[in-house]
This record gives sequence, structure tokens and C-alpha cells, in this order.
Amino acid sequence: MRVLGVDPGLTRCGLGVVDGSSGRSVRAVAVDVVRTAPDLPLERRLLAVGAEVERWIALYGPDVVAIERVFSQHNVRTVMGTAQASGVVALLAARAGLPVAFHTPSEVKAAVTGEGRAGKEQVTTMVTKVLGLAEAPRPADAADALALAICHCWRAPMLDRMAQAKVRSDELAKAHRARLAAAARAAR
Amino acid sequence: MRVLGVDPGLTRCGLGVVDGSSGRSVRAVAVDVVRTAPDLPLERRLLAVGAEVERWIALYGPDVVAIERVFSQHNVRTVMGTAQASGVVALLAARAGLPVAFHTPSEVKAAVTGEGRAGKEQVTTMVTKVLGLAEAPRPADAADALALAICHCWRAPMLDRMAQAKVRSDELAKAHRARLAAAARAAR
Repeated sequence: MRVLGVDPGLTRCGLGVVDGSSGRSVRAVAVDVVRTAPDLPLERRLLAVGAEVERWIALYGPDVVAIERVFSQHNVRTVMGTAQASGVVALLAARAGLPVAFHTPSEVKAAVTGEGRAGKEQVTTMVTKVLGLAEAPRPADAADALALAICHCWRAPMLDRMAQAKVRSDELAKAHRARLAAAARAAR
Repeated sequence: MRVLGVDPGLTRCGLGVVDGSSGRSVRAVAVDVVRTAPDLPLERRLLAVGAEVERWIALYGPDVVAIERVFSQHNVRTVMGTAQASGVVALLAARAGLPVAFHTPSEVKAAVTGEGRAGKEQVTTMVTKVLGLAEAPRPADAADALALAICHCWRAPMLDRMAQAKVRSDELAKAHRARLAAAARAAR
């Protein structure tokens, strides 16, 4: 499974492509950061980020796009731009016919370092180690994009099993309700 | 000038088209609300909103798209979805080659009612009156989209004059600095 991880942003948007195979084996394919100038109008910045995401989708052909879920607990102005960029990335992935998955920062940190409150440096160190890179990816947004892609490789099988279990449990619940209704009719 | 006003959102996204002519004369062309189901995956909701915005741009041929500037002071979950939708709208407007303008809720309220802290009902009443509509547009998101478009019609000439004044003042400042530098060279 090839995953395009995106750490959305306007000033810096991290992009990382990772191939995951059975077990926990992962391989880095590409990583970069798209930058847009803060003095450009917002729509120009979104155009630039969008164009680069589309180029990466065409170039690397990922099976799925994993995006960091944005929270508004930090700087309000930054978060709005980040959310707008994440909306654009999700739209373009969906338009390319790709499934989109969102992971929270703590899910990513927990998957990669084993610790949901790990620092940026710790995430970069583990990403470098897990992917067997000669150098640590810089800036942190590049490492975060790879971490997101790794997180998706490792969480996806579990999320699939959970989704299948949910379908199975819904079926069982439906069958149970049908049996109860049949019993009620028989008792009348 | 034909303006497409967008009150961005996922559950309800207001769309309103207004024609503005010289002075304060404005005319309603179309208004509607796009709804997407809260249980759909986020990317499906963004796809639906984006498709409708593109359809309106093709159908009504606006000269500019005016979008409500999102703040994160309210409900965090809702605001993130609203910001993501606004990013998608700005991207698609820019891809259609249209200029994009953002107005804050208080700029819109001040333009339409004369009061930046006006309530939703007051905005709807003034929109209905200003556009000479037989009925008040419902829900509030529809009225808000028309209010945004009206606000843009009325603010755009002033914003243009301000932008021109800024260019002129930058030129004067540059000429002044050049004269000072020449005087300094002559004095050496």
C-alpha cells in the first residue's frame, strides 16, 4: 500500500510518500515541503498547495491520502489557514478517486514513537530510524508528513478490522431484532 | 458587477448571487443552500459543496466570489469544517479565474444593517428590504450569502480606492526616499 501523507499548511505543507508492506515494514519514496509566501492572497496560496498535491498524486500514484486532522487549540490565524489547506487536499484527493483518512497528531505520535505526547524531535528521530534514512528529514513538516504516512500504514489494517467488526456486529444486531420481532408475532 | 456570495459550511452552505450597479442599487439573481449529511465522510461533503459551487459559477458567471472570513471563536468542531469548506470554495473560484474577496461577519452586518453586531433576524430583514424580495430568504445561511454579496457590491469601490491610494502613497514614499538619498549624495 502506497500512502501520501500530508501535514497541511500554507506557509509550509509537508508531503511524504511511504510504501507499506505486510507487517511493519515501510519504505520512504519521496518527501518535500511546499512553501507559499505569506504575502500572497489566500486563494493564490491554496492554488499553489493544490497544484503540488495534484502533481504528487499523478507522479507517485498513492492508494490513499492520509491528512493530519486539524485542531483549533493553537494560534487561531494559523489554524484557519491550515484547515483551509486540509480541505483543499481532501477535495483534490477525493476528486482523484482516492480514499482519504484523517489521523490526529497524537495518533501519529503514538503510532511512530509509542507516546502520544512525543516532541517534534522524537518524531523526526523515529521516522528517520523506522525508514532507515541516512539523514533526518527537515524541516519538521517533512518528517511529520512521513510520520502520517507511516501511521496510516500501521493503523489501516486495524481500522479495516474495526470497520469489518462493526459491519458484522450491525448484522448480528439486525438478525437479533428480527428474531425478537418474529417471537413477538408468534406470541400474539 | 455580479457577485457570488458564499456563507461556507458543510451542513449548510449558503449561496447567493447579486448584481450591483452604480450607487447602492442591488438586485437578487439567485439564492439557495447546499446541504450535506453529517454522517458522510468529510471528503464526500467537500466534494458535494465544491461541485455545487462550480455549477453556480458556470451557471451564473459571477465577476467575483465573496466568502465569509471564518473565525475560530465559536464551536471548534463546526469551525474546522467551515474553514475546510471555505478553502475549497476559494480554490475553485481561483481555478475558475475569478477574484476572491473575504469579508468578516461584522463587516457584512455593518454594511447591510449599519450595525456590526446586528442579529441574524435583523440581517435577514435588511437583505429582504434592500433586494425588494417578496419573502425573507430562509434559512439564515441563504440570507447571509446574499448579505455577503451585497456587502461586496458596496465595499468593493471603497476597497479599490484604498488599494489605489496605497499604490499612490507607496510611489510618493519611494520618490521621497530617492530625493533624500540624492540630497545626501550631493552633501558629501
